[in-house]
Amino acid sequence: MPFTPAIADQRFVLDHIVGIAALAAEARFAGASADVVDAVLDGIGAFAAGEWAPLNRLGDTVGARWTPAGVVMPDGVAAAYKAYVEGGWGTIGVPEAWGGQGLPFAIQTAVLETLGSANMSLALAPTLTVGAIEALLHHGTPTQQALYLPKLATGEWTGTMNLTEPQAGSDVGALKTRATPRGDGTWSIQGTKIFISFGDHDMADNIVHLVLARTPDAPAGTRGISLFLVPKYRLDADGNPGEANDIRVVSIEHKMGLHGSPTCVLAFGDEGDCVGELIGDELGGMAAMFTMMNNARLNVGLQGVQIAEAATQQAVAYARERIQGRREGRPAAIIEFPDVRRMLMRMTAETQAARALVYYAAAQVDRAALGDAAARARLELLTPLAKAHATDIGCLVTSLGVQVHGGMGYIEETGAAQFFRDARITPIYEGTNGIQAADLVGRKLPMAGGAAFASLVADMRAEAEAAPLRALIDACEATARTLLDAVDDDRLAGSTPFLTMLSVAVCGWLMERSGRLADTAGDPAFTALKQAAARFYVGQVVPEAMGLAAAATAPAADLYPLGSTG
Amino acid sequence: MPFTPAIADQRFVLDHIVGIAALAAEARFAGASADVVDAVLDGIGAFAAGEWAPLNRLGDTVGARWTPAGVVMPDGVAAAYKAYVEGGWGTIGVPEAWGGQGLPFAIQTAVLETLGSANMSLALAPTLTVGAIEALLHHGTPTQQALYLPKLATGEWTGTMNLTEPQAGSDVGALKTRATPRGDGTWSIQGTKIFISFGDHDMADNIVHLVLARTPDAPAGTRGISLFLVPKYRLDADGNPGEANDIRVVSIEHKMGLHGSPTCVLAFGDEGDCVGELIGDELGGMAAMFTMMNNARLNVGLQGVQIAEAATQQAVAYARERIQGRREGRPAAIIEFPDVRRMLMRMTAETQAARALVYYAAAQVDRAALGDAAARARLELLTPLAKAHATDIGCLVTSLGVQVHGGMGYIEETGAAQFFRDARITPIYEGTNGIQAADLVGRKLPMAGGAAFASLVADMRAEAEAAPLRALIDACEATARTLLDAVDDDRLAGSTPFLTMLSVAVCGWLMERSGRLADTAGDPAFTALKQAAARFYVGQVVPEAMGLAAAATAPAADLYPLGSTG
Repeated sequence: MPFTPAIADQRFVLDHIVGIAALAAEARFAGASADVVDAVLDGIGAFAAGEWAPLNRLGDTVGARWTPAGVVMPDGVAAAYKAYVEGGWGTIGVPEAWGGQGLPFAIQTAVLETLGSANMSLALAPTLTVGAIEALLHHGTPTQQALYLPKLATGEWTGTMNLTEPQAGSDVGALKTRATPRGDGTWSIQGTKIFISFGDHDMADNIVHLVLARTPDAPAGTRGISLFLVPKYRLDADGNPGEANDIRVVSIEHKMGLHGSPTCVLAFGDEGDCVGELIGDELGGMAAMFTMMNNARLNVGLQGVQIAEAATQQAVAYARERIQGRREGRPAAIIEFPDVRRMLMRMTAETQAARALVYYAAAQVDRAALGDAAARARLELLTPLAKAHATDIGCLVTSLGVQVHGGMGYIEETGAAQFFRDARITPIYEGTNGIQAADLVGRKLPMAGGAAFASLVADMRAEAEAAPLRALIDACEATARTLLDAVDDDRLAGSTPFLTMLSVAVCGWLMERSGRLADTAGDPAFTALKQAAARFYVGQVVPEAMGLAAAATAPAADLYPLGSTG
Repeated sequence: MPFTPAIADQRFVLDHIVGIAALAAEARFAGASADVVDAVLDGIGAFAAGEWAPLNRLGDTVGARWTPAGVVMPDGVAAAYKAYVEGGWGTIGVPEAWGGQGLPFAIQTAVLETLGSANMSLALAPTLTVGAIEALLHHGTPTQQALYLPKLATGEWTGTMNLTEPQAGSDVGALKTRATPRGDGTWSIQGTKIFISFGDHDMADNIVHLVLARTPDAPAGTRGISLFLVPKYRLDADGNPGEANDIRVVSIEHKMGLHGSPTCVLAFGDEGDCVGELIGDELGGMAAMFTMMNNARLNVGLQGVQIAEAATQQAVAYARERIQGRREGRPAAIIEFPDVRRMLMRMTAETQAARALVYYAAAQVDRAALGDAAARARLELLTPLAKAHATDIGCLVTSLGVQVHGGMGYIEETGAAQFFRDARITPIYEGTNGIQAADLVGRKLPMAGGAAFASLVADMRAEAEAAPLRALIDACEATARTLLDAVDDDRLAGSTPFLTMLSVAVCGWLMERSGRLADTAGDPAFTALKQAAARFYVGQVVPEAMGLAAAATAPAADLYPLGSTG
């Protein structure tokens, strides 16, 4: 079925969750007028539905292919990517100084959502490029910025993040890639990186690899890491891609899904001739990486929204068309059956809730950019929630989507299975959801003596009305107190259930508000659905999360007598 | 990693959940002595680990292939299947009169579990054969039984179930396949069936298709359906496979998983020359189908146990080997980290709980066969729970298995992804889990004025000790009362959450008992793990299910304002 961009809900969330009008009232975001926002949402919607969605299944069935000359995308993908570049869609959130439109991150979020709902694997290329842009904006020299930012902004060049090595997965501090000075200010890079999304492809004129490596005599662990920019093609005197750098695409992974996104093993400097530039300070790699990664985490959470939206649309359409059995004596579409309705309503409510959560976090990026320290703290607190919970929702919703299709859901031609397979990487990459939970209880919860958490709870409490929602907020507060007082292992043992509880509380708060304001949308069908989704979320999803309090506060000792099951 | 049969837990569950000693005290099951049970568990364990497990990945990567001459299994699979036949493993639960060993269904359940943990897609062939055997045992004529049962018992011939047609998925009453009398007591079959597992293959000498069809002038809907036996090869005068019947394998499906099990589209009687025999009475097809299906539903629930066991073993092994990060200043395997432990403990506890649930239901099959009417009623009540909840657990546990592997879990070579893909069909086929939930609240709960449910609740209450477990049992009872008083749509709206609540209550009851009896096993590591799994289940999984009560009692009206999300 054709993809329909979720413009009405995006607009609603931008208005009532992000507060886009307040942002546009600031000089920095003056461009984000209501007209511009509408034009952007409509424009990217039409583009994504027309150009990218039709290639989604081809990306899965044909997939990116490794060749000795490099990775080749399926026919038509490079053209569809170029159309994205030419449409200027990459420039939305980039400062005007670098050729961008300087619009809020929240608007860029909407653009990326629509691209990814249409074609999640292809949308990963711009998503990673955003990370490279962030790193250069915050840590690049003026020369580096001038050379690279304009091309990354348009998407003529794409970006990658090179963190993982075979022996060092989530443990970045264990990486071994080396950088040695070449004496001319540049560095020689040597090492192998794995799991590099869009590490090679044939869609852009250059690829800007951001690579974590160790400099000579660097201390062990994360303190010894620096960030390097390593282009696929070195720039010539005019700043154009010239000579190929010494980077070899060793292989691409055979993955369960996301086949349209090549996941590369890259060997840097096999011939001893891989040239990179330091980004930021030597040994400042982790700080630079976190700059890239924080927004990247929000954008991976956004992938949960993307795929949930796509799966929900398709399941609703299928359930309307599929006639099976009877109701009141007449043949009925399966959407008439209450249990199918339950699945579709859950998919709808969870998708809307995930969108509200991720966009709300994105709004904090914009407020923080305006100098709002409280927004910065809230962003830090919400980032693990947005990444982990929205991707969990992506998995839940795509699984329900398969189920709604019945036997046809298991047949690849239907497309529901692809969503389910594609979604499954999102709780893993960009820091597993377990790492997000550890970040939440280990770093974010204790920040400033728990002030960021207390402020969030206070805001939720000031607005929340429904009894189950108020009860969940209370339970989150009590659980947080228990976790803060606990020893490390007990805190970590409860981290994932707590992350889910708190995420559902935040989602419940934002959904309840959405239900209250739903009649401002001026579309009776939208209003009715939003109110129903809000009621469903607060009345059914929120109570479910209450059941997690026992797990969130149980000690680690309960988890440790583990052998095998047999 | 090599597959290890879960013999210790199987033995424990047979002893303390099934009550195998009490069954063996009955003349009918006198063969099920402790020695025989041990020999069967050990024997099938060694066979499955040695012969079937090594082919599991080949089944996924090469898969069954359609050719004009029929479906071809990957190299080595036919030989592995023949070894199963020669080992006599198919005959375990078949009455001695037909060449079987007459052992309890619960023992056959253990055999099928081990086969399916080793190779779920291949184990589907014997699983379906069991259904054909049941249909013939209960509805076949003595001649039909004599001709077909001995070969089906050994597995020299396999069985299939042909229910679904393109226009009639879960709505069996809408099927159109026709059967017309040929005047010699046989019938001419004409029609197309889809989703026929092992509808064709090259492992056995014959395939016995059990086909639902309409006879001339049959009433519309399910009352007009009859069951036919349609062999791939018609039997000659000596009862051996002779001339090919008019059955064409149109295609096999391109599925998300279970690639080792060919899912066929079969055209019966394209040439007008497909001969079948009536099984049971004309228009008695639904009754015969339910005979096949009830045990088949338990066996699909068992697939949830199979794949959960396989995924848990692999995840535990991986987590022990995978060194990442540090604890207490030393490199640590990821199994040391509390959040990974949480995932592994949940996988372990849920797998054990699902095993207890399915085996407990299987024990009711055996008690019912001894004439115990209460056991028959309990079996009917438990069947939708065993099918739906155990397959939900299969999906949950295999997803956690992917997560434990991190990025490697998304790479197909690791095998975790295959478990995840294979598991996803089980909540769909053999009656979707939504249909199971409708069966629970619509047929099983009201049976005999709710007596079967009341009796189960009384048994649970008499034994349950932990406060959260007692609270969940109370909540199930209160919810059941609400649902029984509700109008149809409201009852159906709450059916799935209620099914989960009740399943977790039953699992909690059986797991709590298991923990109490764990020290009888005589193996300190087993005892410690079982006690921990029981504690975890009762202390963490049971409270989670309490959160479902709101959803189980919410009215259908809440689900109906559904448009799309955008």
